[in-house]
Parts: sequence; C-alpha cells; structure tokens
Amino acid sequence: MSLPQLFSEEHSADVVAASFENTPDPRLKQVLSSLVRHLHAFVKDVELTEDEWGVAIDFLTRTGQMSNDVRQEFILLSDVLGVSMLVETINHRTYGASTESTVLGPFHMVESPRREVGDNIALDDKGTPCLVSGQVTGPEGEPLAGASVDVWQTNEDGFYDVQQPGIQPAGNLRGLFTADEQGRFWFRSVVPRHYPIPDDGPVGQLLAATSRHPHRPAHLHFIVAAPGYRPVTTHVFVADSPYLDSDAVFGVKESLIRAVPEVDDPARASGAGLPNPFRTLTFDITLLRADQARPAAQPAQVQPTLVRGASGVMS
Amino acid sequence: MSLPQLFSEEHSADVVAASFENTPDPRLKQVLSSLVRHLHAFVKDVELTEDEWGVAIDFLTRTGQMSNDVRQEFILLSDVLGVSMLVETINHRTYGASTESTVLGPFHMVESPRREVGDNIALDDKGTPCLVSGQVTGPEGEPLAGASVDVWQTNEDGFYDVQQPGIQPAGNLRGLFTADEQGRFWFRSVVPRHYPIPDDGPVGQLLAATSRHPHRPAHLHFIVAAPGYRPVTTHVFVADSPYLDSDAVFGVKESLIRAVPEVDDPARASGAGLPNPFRTLTFDITLLRADQARPAAQPAQVQPTLVRGASGVMS
Repeated sequence: MSLPQLFSEEHSADVVAASFENTPDPRLKQVLSSLVRHLHAFVKDVELTEDEWGVAIDFLTRTGQMSNDVRQEFILLSDVLGVSMLVETINHRTYGASTESTVLGPFHMVESPRREVGDNIALDDKGTPCLVSGQVTGPEGEPLAGASVDVWQTNEDGFYDVQQPGIQPAGNLRGLFTADEQGRFWFRSVVPRHYPIPDDGPVGQLLAATSRHPHRPAHLHFIVAAPGYRPVTTHVFVADSPYLDSDAVFGVKESLIRAVPEVDDPARASGAGLPNPFRTLTFDITLLRADQARPAAQPAQVQPTLVRGASGVMS
Repeated sequence: MSLPQLFSEEHSADVVAASFENTPDPRLKQVLSSLVRHLHAFVKDVELTEDEWGVAIDFLTRTGQMSNDVRQEFILLSDVLGVSMLVETINHRTYGASTESTVLGPFHMVESPRREVGDNIALDDKGTPCLVSGQVTGPEGEPLAGASVDVWQTNEDGFYDVQQPGIQPAGNLRGLFTADEQGRFWFRSVVPRHYPIPDDGPVGQLLAATSRHPHRPAHLHFIVAAPGYRPVTTHVFVADSPYLDSDAVFGVKESLIRAVPEVDDPARASGAGLPNPFRTLTFDITLLRADQARPAAQPAQVQPTLVRGASGVMS
C-alpha cells in the first residue's frame, strides 16, 4: 500500500478524485473530479465545523423531502443560489446575436392553450389591460413567418393559474400563438405582477436567515421557436416593477427589460378590443439559426462590451 | 438600477454573494459566500449542461427522499465524496501530538453496554477470537486512569448488531469499558470484517456508475475520553484487510493501521479465557489536554513531515 492513496487534509481532493479514475464515462469522471476539487476547496476555505456540516446534511435532506410532484425544492435552491441562471446562461450564450435567455421556472407545467393572434388571455377580469406585441426574426432581421410564441404569466394577485386551481379559470394568462407572415404576434393580457417564490420550506428558511426577500419582479414568460432556428426560453421584465434589481432567482438581464407605457387613445383601444386607457408591451425576439455554432466563452474583458451591444440591438 | 447588480456569466458569483450581504450572522454570510463562489466555479469549469443539471437535481432529491430514521443517504454521499473525512480531519488536527481521528460512521446509534475489562463482547459465537488491548495516555505519556473506552465493530458476517436485530444478540460486539489505574484496557472479541456501506440507493448508483466498490476495510471503532482531555473518535484498522487502500469513505490513516498477529500459547490463551491459538490487536491511544490550543493548518510543505512523525509516535 502506497502512502499517497491514503486520505490527508493536504491531498484530500487528489485522493477522492483518484477514486473516480476508472469511471467508464469520461464526462462523468470530469464532472465528478471537478466537483470534488471545488467542494473540498470550499470546506477548507471556511474550515467547516462538524456542527455546520450537520446543519448542511439536515438542510439538504429536508430539501429533498420537501419535493413532490408539484414542488421541486432543489430547483428552488439552485435558483436562489444563482446556479439555475448560470447553467441557463452558459448553455445559451448569445453575445448580441439573439435574444438572451433566462430561467424556465417551475410554472410551465401545463400545455398552453392554442390561441389566435389578437385573443385575450386574461380570463379572470382582473388587472390592468395590456396589449403585448412583437416580431420574431432571424439574426439578419429576416421575419420568421409562423414562429410559435408560447407565453405565460401571473395574474393581478401574483399567482399562475396552476397555483390556484378552482380560483383562476384553467389556462388563464397562458397562450400558444402562431406568428403571422411577418413574424408578428399580438395579444391582449394584463400587466404581470411581481410575486414571491414558495418560501414555506427549507429554501424559504435560508432566505429568511440571510435577510433576503423571496420576490421575483413582474415578468411575462416566452418560449419562441421556428423551424431551422434555435428556440429561446426567456422573460420580458416590466421596467417599473419592484425587485428588478434583486430578483430572488437572479433572472433579470438588462436586455430583457421593457417599459410598459400607458396609451390614452380611444380609437386604438377600440381597435384592439381594450378599454381606454391601456398599457402596451413590445418585445421583439431574435433567434439564432440552428446551424450557427454555439458561441464559446469569451475572455472576461471582451464580454461586457458585447453584452452592451446586445442590449442596443434588442431595445 | 446599476448594471453590476444584474446577473452575468462573468460576474455570477459576485452577484449572488452580494445577495447575502445583509445576513445577520457573519459566519453564515462567510460560509454561503464561499459556497456560492466554489459552486459557480465548478459549473463554469465543466460548463454543466442543462441535462446534467437535471440529473443532479434528481439525484439530490432522491438522496433526500431515501433518508429516514435509520438511513441517512446524504451522510453516505458526504462519506463517498470524502467530505465527512475532510471535516473530521480539519476539526481534529493532531500533528503528531495525539491519536488521529476518523469518521464516526452511522452505526453508533445505540448506547454501548457497560462491560468490565476482560469481558467478551462477541456474543454470537462466530469469528476468529481476538484479544484487544491498549493504554490511554496524555500527550506526555501520563496514564489516564479511568478513561472511558467505547468500542463497536462488525461480526464475522460484516454486520453491526443494529443491522441485524433478531439475528445478532443486542449489544453484540459493543462495549463501554473503564480503563484501569494505568489507563489500560483489554477485552475479548473477534477479528472485525470488511463490509459494504448500504449501496441500494442513489449513492450506490453513483459508486456503480464510477466503477467504485462500496467496501470498507476491517476496523474496530473507538471513542476514548478522559476528564480534562479532548476525546477522540477513531478506528483501528486491521493490517491485512482487503480494501485498506480503497476505503469507500476514505477513513484510513496510516497511523491507525495495526497488525493482528496470531498467538499460539496455550497458557496465555487459558489466562485470557480464549481458545488457542488466538489473534491479538494492540491499540494505544494518546489524548490532547482539553486546554491545549487546537492546532491550526500548517503550510503544505511542512505537514507531511509532521504527519510521518505522528505515525512514528503511534506505532
């Protein structure tokens, strides 16, 4: 038996990483080796005490046990630690060439009802009427006729329909639209509301212990897709919403924020089938071509410039 | 709203760490900030895909849900990733001044029955008879009269009594002894056996996917304590056991390995109340004084020398 194979504080990560040496799947081996190195570096950095380790074991156990068919507490944990957003961002780099993505969230659990452009998706007679519209294009500005535009949002009380079965009409504030020949879509809705993520479990306890609020700023979810192009999962955020600078799940990107101005124009209101005055939200979406190479990570000093460029293109 | 507060791939860890800025408990703030930095560095290092993230969420959820009153799958996960051993080692640094610690393990769930030195703890008439003995001293070699010596081990089939209720007699292969005036203890037992950790859950799946076996080398657990001294939780490992260089939970330290030689001496056997021949296991234990400062981490290049010194003191 050779000494270096035995555990020591100094070599702990090497020893554990070596135990994965015979992993048949090279990617699994890579991921686990990296995980072990970062996990051990964390424990050493803070010199985690045995009591703290016990608290962590208990917290993780309760997080698993809080999860069921309609509640995924580990996704919430990933969300509030910014991990969901980081994975999303790494896997959908755009660098100004297309609409930025953000988290899917847990409320796209039902298929959105098919609707015609112009339809009203607000079925519960609450909230501030809003005309939502936009155009779906490719990276050179080519209109994507027939693109599918899947949207969902909270009602005036800050809840999705699936959170209030029997209170909200089924399919309230959801819709699957098909863009017209010019890639354009429009529909009637209400201004979305900010809302808290579920905070009655371990993740809520973590937020409370760290004086963090559980709220997400007001947003409208989109999944936009067209044949031959990469789909995007994203939100548009309401520019005057509270919590825009402190989203509990870190989903806000500057390029995704839009003002929702009031329009006072009886003729336009009447034409759109809305009461006067009403609000308007415009969100154009650009998709990458499916055959475009996935952008790689850029050197840190180059990235912010490119991202600001993106914001200019989008708004 | 200022740009730096919004999430970006480049600044992700800063943005999330900043969200913990108002945490009232400074230690919690420190631990979470460090956790976030290491977790995000891991995700970036491997460019974790969305599918892999989903597998991780599912794995962690099942790990929580596998746990109950008699099974703690998250501790097992911590064990097979070397985290339990790292936490144990960081919190019980010895640098040659005392017996090294190792993991407590999950099987010290019952109080050990009080026994007199010389008693036989093997109640199931199985296994290879073994005389276990040792002396408990302080750092200057002073004998610790009346030290408590709590021991537990597997039987010949590789199970602890609590794993086989109704099959093994209650309290089989456990004992709480009081050392004599010279700090000496001795008792009759059998040579411990190697055994697998529970591998019918998510952690077992992880081991299988990485071609790792679930076994721990043969060992005897000790918790040794004396008033005015720091208690130690440790094992003594059997030198000719399989898996000594590949303990599934990384618990082996060189200073804790002992040969278990056979003694063929009818007079000694008769005196000890054992059949001839029998095996002997000698494990002397040195405790730090309670008022001794907890040793701090040493520079990496100094540490191996000190650890080898410890091994010389102990064996």
